Amino acid sequence: MTQVYNFSAGPAMMPTAVLEKAQAELLNWQNQQTSVMEVSHRGKLFMEMIAECEQDFRKLYNIPENYKILFLQGGARGQFAAIPMNLIGEKGKALYLTSGHWSATAAKEARNFCEIDEINILEQGDELKVGNLDFSEIAEQYDYVHYCPNETISGVEIFDEPKVGNAVLVADMSSNILARRIDISKFGIIYAGAQKNLGPAGITLVIVREDLIGKARKATPSIWNYETQANNDSMINTPPTFAWYLCSLVFKHLLELGGLAEMEKRNQAKAELLYRYLDNSNFYRNTVAKANRSLMNVTFTTGNDELNAKFVAEATACGLQALKGHKVLGGMRASIYNAMPIEGVQALIAFMQKFEQENQ
Amino acid sequence: MTQVYNFSAGPAMMPTAVLEKAQAELLNWQNQQTSVMEVSHRGKLFMEMIAECEQDFRKLYNIPENYKILFLQGGARGQFAAIPMNLIGEKGKALYLTSGHWSATAAKEARNFCEIDEINILEQGDELKVGNLDFSEIAEQYDYVHYCPNETISGVEIFDEPKVGNAVLVADMSSNILARRIDISKFGIIYAGAQKNLGPAGITLVIVREDLIGKARKATPSIWNYETQANNDSMINTPPTFAWYLCSLVFKHLLELGGLAEMEKRNQAKAELLYRYLDNSNFYRNTVAKANRSLMNVTFTTGNDELNAKFVAEATACGLQALKGHKVLGGMRASIYNAMPIEGVQALIAFMQKFEQENQ
Repeated sequence: MTQVYNFSAGPAMMPTAVLEKAQAELLNWQNQQTSVMEVSHRGKLFMEMIAECEQDFRKLYNIPENYKILFLQGGARGQFAAIPMNLIGEKGKALYLTSGHWSATAAKEARNFCEIDEINILEQGDELKVGNLDFSEIAEQYDYVHYCPNETISGVEIFDEPKVGNAVLVADMSSNILARRIDISKFGIIYAGAQKNLGPAGITLVIVREDLIGKARKATPSIWNYETQANNDSMINTPPTFAWYLCSLVFKHLLELGGLAEMEKRNQAKAELLYRYLDNSNFYRNTVAKANRSLMNVTFTTGNDELNAKFVAEATACGLQALKGHKVLGGMRASIYNAMPIEGVQALIAFMQKFEQENQ
Repeated sequence: MTQVYNFSAGPAMMPTAVLEKAQAELLNWQNQQTSVMEVSHRGKLFMEMIAECEQDFRKLYNIPENYKILFLQGGARGQFAAIPMNLIGEKGKALYLTSGHWSATAAKEARNFCEIDEINILEQGDELKVGNLDFSEIAEQYDYVHYCPNETISGVEIFDEPKVGNAVLVADMSSNILARRIDISKFGIIYAGAQKNLGPAGITLVIVREDLIGKARKATPSIWNYETQANNDSMINTPPTFAWYLCSLVFKHLLELGGLAEMEKRNQAKAELLYRYLDNSNFYRNTVAKANRSLMNVTFTTGNDELNAKFVAEATACGLQALKGHKVLGGMRASIYNAMPIEGVQALIAFMQKFEQENQ
């Protein structure tokens, strides 16, 4: 049987150890002779599990006490709507920094709920490069400043947080949550869909600073009202219990591996290997500026659509799955989230070398 | 090992055959050597799976062609908000028929989004009894009429649909979806959280008549905009893929058992057995009128809180799990959804007899 590596951008690869544990106890969780997905979310064992889950997550990021952790439904796109509903207040306006597809989509959705200003932070030029990130002069006019630190489609990552003075910084970290250490205290809100680094699709993590809770407009769905959910252990309605359970297993797994310092080291090593190979190749190219190359999503192209399609087909046949780039960009994309071992990147590079030799 | 029966009101028991299949293929779905939760929702195999899932669901209810099936996130409580956002139009007002906790909660949430009138349809008296359901004289003043055909907490079911003339009838079927045959064409919208009869918590089914699509207000989150989701195979964002997959297995399982005619027969037999026992007992009582006794949630009490607590503790020790009634009502509740075999009801009755003898 061929060793398979799954480079899907999301839903993405999960740690094998987590899936194996979930499989082993799928019909008998905690010796209850029922599945974890069949028990009440309000039961003692489930409540203990989620309390431990929160503790583990706090440990991973060293999250200050004045932040609440919410586990919600609706994905990051649900939060695109929930954030203006919860945060637009006396200033009546938000600032959206756009650097690609997802930050622009967040801005578009927000326009249905509030007035926004939008600034494209990509520099003009052949390379995808993020420009000046100092907005401290204007940021405080806004109820919040929104950005997306990792654009999954183009593979553009922003490593330094935008400067926003005392304004509230909101980040969509769907595709780089838990990938490296960050200083949570710089953010008002961090949110993320689960399906890259947290767990399976269908659960959404929101880290929210306490002083931002309690400002929601009346017409906010109760499942997204941060105050209601913070006061009800994220259980104002039945939560996606199985997805939550899988997140809890992922967090334990990451702690066992050595936490975010170790994940950061591994992610840097994987990305460096792949980018170094791309830089030394005359056959493939990546068009992201070195300072903004994503640790999670590595985009590349042969520059020829037919050859790209051939690459994807042959890679798939060799067990290297889901390398096709997003339809808005074309080319190839290797998503190398936490669960991707370095052996997967090595196998990809070996295939790329072979393909280059055969098709030059 | 004691045989365990799980009477949880939700998340509830799943069919064992479904869990066993999910377990067997958890790390290797469709011979892809990846989990179904690791593959792209836009991939060929996943798209084929959801197409079949929809066909199977249509078959189960014999759903007319002018209805769309959506698989969304946010639970029934999400739809409490989404329904007014999508349906309130020129009439500017909705009618909510309340018969217990969930219909009242839906009405409360709707008030944050529109003007509503609320009518309590429970009759005064010792029994829980639903009164007159003919609203055909007034219903057409409203953009829609909302009700909950099965109140999970009190165990009150409404078997005949309210008469609403040509008005749009909206039903929260979270706790009795797929329990018996119904005529879909009487409804404008049916919605249901999954965690009772459909699959695991974290996915929400919406059956919506086509002429009701396309009326959403601007400030509707895109993940709940019926038009956006209907035009995008319920994939305007990453759907809860694993939960969707489990629903697809449940639908196949029900078709194999004989579809809804068979489920209805089984559910009636289970409920009849339990209610008959309750009616013949001087020790336990159920306070729901015979015409409104739920096929899914059977509530009962000894009339003594201490004895009720003892009942729940001893039943749990005997492998009869999650029989404690909802905190707003107290007493006991046996939820006997599709996945509960008649043997579970028989085991419960045997325990009830023994407990009655020991505690009379």
